[in-house]
Amino acid sequence: MITSLNNKTVKEVTALSQKGKERNKKDVFVVEGVKMFMEAPEERICGVYVSRSAEQGLFETCGQKLAELSYELVSDEVFAKMSDTMTPQGILCLIRQFHHDLTFMLENVIKERKLFIILEDLQDPGNLGTVFRTAEAVGASGIIMSRRTVDVYNPKTIRSTMGSVYRVPFVSVEDISPVIKQMQEKGVSVYAAHLAGKVYYEAFDYRKSTAFLIGNEGNGLRKETADCADALIRIPMEGSVESLNAAVASSVLLYEAYRQRRV
Amino acid sequence: MITSLNNKTVKEVTALSQKGKERNKKDVFVVEGVKMFMEAPEERICGVYVSRSAEQGLFETCGQKLAELSYELVSDEVFAKMSDTMTPQGILCLIRQFHHDLTFMLENVIKERKLFIILEDLQDPGNLGTVFRTAEAVGASGIIMSRRTVDVYNPKTIRSTMGSVYRVPFVSVEDISPVIKQMQEKGVSVYAAHLAGKVYYEAFDYRKSTAFLIGNEGNGLRKETADCADALIRIPMEGSVESLNAAVASSVLLYEAYRQRRV
Repeated sequence: MITSLNNKTVKEVTALSQKGKERNKKDVFVVEGVKMFMEAPEERICGVYVSRSAEQGLFETCGQKLAELSYELVSDEVFAKMSDTMTPQGILCLIRQFHHDLTFMLENVIKERKLFIILEDLQDPGNLGTVFRTAEAVGASGIIMSRRTVDVYNPKTIRSTMGSVYRVPFVSVEDISPVIKQMQEKGVSVYAAHLAGKVYYEAFDYRKSTAFLIGNEGNGLRKETADCADALIRIPMEGSVESLNAAVASSVLLYEAYRQRRV
Repeated sequence: MITSLNNKTVKEVTALSQKGKERNKKDVFVVEGVKMFMEAPEERICGVYVSRSAEQGLFETCGQKLAELSYELVSDEVFAKMSDTMTPQGILCLIRQFHHDLTFMLENVIKERKLFIILEDLQDPGNLGTVFRTAEAVGASGIIMSRRTVDVYNPKTIRSTMGSVYRVPFVSVEDISPVIKQMQEKGVSVYAAHLAGKVYYEAFDYRKSTAFLIGNEGNGLRKETADCADALIRIPMEGSVESLNAAVASSVLLYEAYRQRRV
């Protein structure tokens, strides 16, 4: 059992929680809690830490999986230090990062009517995680993020994905515009949510392969990105509202596409 | 200029930021930033605090309004103490709380096809604020919250309303069930977002006065509350998603009602 706050492992895990650079260097990320442990693909788990006071209870909630994997016991004090949450559940894992392939994501877009979301410079970890969660719910085929988007492996993002990060393919790309063009050439229609859009979003037909393009919370899409889209679409707003929350805008569009595909 | 961290006003404002009880006792709440200041109804502002280093710049962004109101200058150190944000914009106001009237909100529901959202025990301040923002965007007539819902005047909630808290009527009620019945008697159809719903949400007609009932993030709606609804409606979800984020679920339903009303 690890009981010292100065233990090397403790320092490493804390650094992995706090620093994107460390995560990328080691090619892992940190997840916390019972749900994130239970849903983690077993072959990606490369470390499990359990707090002493939680151990007994965890055997009841995640018995078999916990028994099959080896885990390291740590004192409650050490766990509190490793944990990023206010009320830790006493289980924390290291998971190997995903390396999804854009080419694979874009296969069969003519036959399979896929659904994508492209995020430019989203900054709020909770928003990004919520987009993952909604994307899985509508059966989306992938999320494409600009390099300046908040780190998907940020603990706050991970938490708000509620496990969808394990299941929705995603890629981070240096430059969005060429990717949009690549998608269009393969047969994906790309719609940019934009205040300058003249046509309301529900007027378009999203039953073929579709991607929605969502901009940064404060500034929206960059002009050169929006210019690449097949069309600018407008989510109507009343009152004095200048914009919707980015996760809400994404969800309204994704659910409209999903609705059309079910009708 | 206030320069002492021990100043009585500083302590009062800090307490108002941190404690719901203090806010309710004094019948005020705290807002921060240029946008929240500029959109605040002037007659409700009962205190403005400006940080020394921000004063000059603020005269450029909110000149006339700032000039018309008297404000108190505080040192940067004092402002940092009063502020709830990591990167304060140097302006903070006290606003008198709202006391909206449910009876007024429910007037003319037969003639005017109003739209409401009823929240039971929502716990995340960001979710609540986001619901306000979306509610304004779809022209909703009001938000009804159970008493156990997170405080609307929590600084995090206020921030994520992006000003909609000033414009969307809301009430907090001790017991939701009798309010649902009252709404139904007046002619509002109440639909509960529920995993046990057998019919997808888009199958219903929301063009008459409608209320959507949304439950707590972790537990959903209480049985006795869901039982009051005219119908349980289901937001379909694929993959392993157990539920949507509460603000996303609210937004999908509100935008579907808004879409139907525009078609």
